[in-house]
Amino acid sequence: MLTPYLLLDVAIARENILRMAQKTAMSGVLFRPHFKTHQSALVGEWFRDAGVETITVSSLKMANYFALHGWSDITIGITVNRFDYEEIDQLSSQINLNIVVEDVETVLFLGQRLSHPVGVFIKIDTGYHRTGVDADDFDSLVGLMDALHDTRNLIFIGLLTHSGHTYHARSVSEIFDIQQQAFKQMLAIKTFLFDRFPLMQLSYGDTPSCSLLSSFKGMDEVRPGNFVFNDLMQCSLGVCSLADIALVLVTPVLALHAERGEAVIHGGAVHLSKESIADDQGVIHYGIVVELNGNQWNIRRVLGHVTRISQEHGIVSMTPLGEQQMAVGVNVAVLPVHSCLTANLMRRYVLTSGEVAEMMP
Amino acid sequence: MLTPYLLLDVAIARENILRMAQKTAMSGVLFRPHFKTHQSALVGEWFRDAGVETITVSSLKMANYFALHGWSDITIGITVNRFDYEEIDQLSSQINLNIVVEDVETVLFLGQRLSHPVGVFIKIDTGYHRTGVDADDFDSLVGLMDALHDTRNLIFIGLLTHSGHTYHARSVSEIFDIQQQAFKQMLAIKTFLFDRFPLMQLSYGDTPSCSLLSSFKGMDEVRPGNFVFNDLMQCSLGVCSLADIALVLVTPVLALHAERGEAVIHGGAVHLSKESIADDQGVIHYGIVVELNGNQWNIRRVLGHVTRISQEHGIVSMTPLGEQQMAVGVNVAVLPVHSCLTANLMRRYVLTSGEVAEMMP
Repeated sequence: MLTPYLLLDVAIARENILRMAQKTAMSGVLFRPHFKTHQSALVGEWFRDAGVETITVSSLKMANYFALHGWSDITIGITVNRFDYEEIDQLSSQINLNIVVEDVETVLFLGQRLSHPVGVFIKIDTGYHRTGVDADDFDSLVGLMDALHDTRNLIFIGLLTHSGHTYHARSVSEIFDIQQQAFKQMLAIKTFLFDRFPLMQLSYGDTPSCSLLSSFKGMDEVRPGNFVFNDLMQCSLGVCSLADIALVLVTPVLALHAERGEAVIHGGAVHLSKESIADDQGVIHYGIVVELNGNQWNIRRVLGHVTRISQEHGIVSMTPLGEQQMAVGVNVAVLPVHSCLTANLMRRYVLTSGEVAEMMP
Repeated sequence: MLTPYLLLDVAIARENILRMAQKTAMSGVLFRPHFKTHQSALVGEWFRDAGVETITVSSLKMANYFALHGWSDITIGITVNRFDYEEIDQLSSQINLNIVVEDVETVLFLGQRLSHPVGVFIKIDTGYHRTGVDADDFDSLVGLMDALHDTRNLIFIGLLTHSGHTYHARSVSEIFDIQQQAFKQMLAIKTFLFDRFPLMQLSYGDTPSCSLLSSFKGMDEVRPGNFVFNDLMQCSLGVCSLADIALVLVTPVLALHAERGEAVIHGGAVHLSKESIADDQGVIHYGIVVELNGNQWNIRRVLGHVTRISQEHGIVSMTPLGEQQMAVGVNVAVLPVHSCLTANLMRRYVLTSGEVAEMMP
């Protein structure tokens, strides 16, 4: 196997899936995991084994890929591009497809063109301020629901929000604050419009809060994605431990520069991405390097941090253990800062069983 | 064509290639362009049209891909992983393959295992301090050359350096300073060891200095890559203009948030990468959004800057023109900060001719 490659620990990933599946089941909410993290039909099967039948994806292309692999209830979680209407209509003739909207013109445009029913969520901004209708903007919300009501094939399902600002939280309690505020705003809309839209569903996303919460009371479905692999970002937020990370980059040491305490690995921006994070001392890095033995990495044996990165190379600042252990040609494991971006770059997984799982082409 | 996709202006790319090919020819140095930027057999053909027969790549996998597409003189520009020796031996039985080394153990290891001749460059650190033998460390250099001399199938060709620190230069004159220092160091080694290694070749890389220089006197070959597409990083360094950028991301406006002067595009970290740059006012951004008409973008009509980015979304701070022109569903063009990373993420090009060019799988 030519390095670098991604090594995926099947047991950890399955455990991550099972934990979230059980928690959502206990909470009585629908589990609609986001599949953009893994983009793999095989990893999808592990979700199916945990009872999952409904999924979220981030593009029409990804929806088509998973439909082809037997998934028949898919929400495309990104605000729809109305000019994709032909592809949407084609896919919604085959599966139960949901899209996300946030403006009336798009609703009217699609209403005139879609010939098969498609479920519709309205994107709500509960404070992330990336996109969506402001949660306080009841006029726009009612306008959208009325427009949906007047179309034939756009079936209003409910409200969808992604509290992406949990990723900027500096403490677990701040994540809870963000989540509670979002739940409160979503429930306020539902309550306010209950007489007119009694069946309105509430869909909530983001791994940090879904990993932390023990109950999702008030929501109808949740859409975390990142939790299947976890990563250093999630650890840093306090929502998982290093032992819950299911994915590492396997890469060889290409050179040692002992005089400056550095090793060079074949792991750069095209493998790990340029996502960085600060360690406890505030030092910015792109991944933690740990010992690898066969198909097992050892989180208790930290060899260094990837402190600089270029397109193909990573520069590792070695720990004392790293200075003892790292040698040219030896493969090491890098725990990624953001597993979604790393997986998206690498396009395939080597499983701890030895099997290779390809991602969506 | 489902958005987002990369649009590649064939005329600009061919012009970029031709300019560099002519300059190197005038200088009497070998042009060995780095193909990691485009990773495409079709774009490779445009280089062939400009007389190029020798190339650089960044991995064994990429070397195999281009060998399959008729390239028979390839340097793998990254320090070799000795445990890839079987794949190296296999490929060097078919083509003229060069590898890069920087330690004696690797030379000895490969010398015992390779059964076909392979060209060898020694990686020299001329100040970037990423990797390579320090240019002043004559003892290590002589040790390496002696070790190479004693092997049968490792053919010492010369010294290779990449002045990647030009990317951190704050002025064109600083780029020249870096380049001149590197040339001086490389030539010093060559001069010092001329009696023993009279045929030693000097190979020099990096687009910033290769784009700026009018002559490469003293070097034997140059390996720029990024120049074929250029990008905002190169513009910011002062080595190209916006008109020389051959590649944009085509993406639809998904939402407008006029009250905060923002638009949302389907262009995030999985399309543009997380590479950022500061504009003239010091504002960090991930790309410049310009008007798109059919298959032509207009660099004189700047609609905004991508000032925030998440996995799939880009948040555009609109210019006054953007506020007039950007509308939901309209496709816009994003000039990338780092075209190599953007191309690597997107995996295919739509040419201005309408043709689609796939990248290495």
